[in-house]
Amino acid sequence: MAKISSPTETEWCIKSLIAVFQKYAGKDGYNCSLSKTEFLSFMNTELFSFLNTELAAFTKNHKDPSVLDRMKKLDVNSDGQLDVPEFLNLIGGLAVACHDSFLKAIPSQKWT
Amino acid sequence: MAKISSPTETEWCIKSLIAVFQKYAGKDGYNCSLSKTEFLSFMNTELFSFLNTELAAFTKNHKDPSVLDRMKKLDVNSDGQLDVPEFLNLIGGLAVACHDSFLKAIPSQKWT
Repeated sequence: MAKISSPTETEWCIKSLIAVFQKYAGKDGYNCSLSKTEFLSFMNTELFSFLNTELAAFTKNHKDPSVLDRMKKLDVNSDGQLDVPEFLNLIGGLAVACHDSFLKAIPSQKWT
Repeated sequence: MAKISSPTETEWCIKSLIAVFQKYAGKDGYNCSLSKTEFLSFMNTELFSFLNTELAAFTKNHKDPSVLDRMKKLDVNSDGQLDVPEFLNLIGGLAVACHDSFLKAIPSQKWT
């Protein structure tokens, strides 16, 4: 019988991000895309604490109407919904901002 | 005094992915990019279990020399290293494949 190993941290993160997407996308019964209402719900719930950090610039104004402007920029095919690749562009942008903020926090680190 | 809230699942995943990147990228002392050796180490350690799932097609041959062909495709600026955005393209591709596999697993679901 094949041995089933535990997921690694990377695998766990990938599965969790998809589960979060499906959780919010499924609020209207169709879990393949985020509607405007679902996107607002996701932003105001899942990315709340990022507002109070150095990542605020990236998520600027995400609680006011301009969050929908952000959604428009992410909505590459302009169908008024965010599919998985479009959603992941947001996650990727946040991750890059997160990495940059880590680097700024250790400006004196000496690379060898 | 400001209240510090716990990170949400999405925030935790973003931070974890960056931490994983920095862990492998830092093996040669410079944690801003993955060298070929670091990328091989990441793939063979962090994505091992995905090989035995329906995601195998996406990570096909990642344990043999063609993993370096995959790295070349991800290396958009052709500097022989993977930076954070290039690394996140891999994660995004895997997440999309993961989402697609979930949908295939529930083909009879009725959307309302």
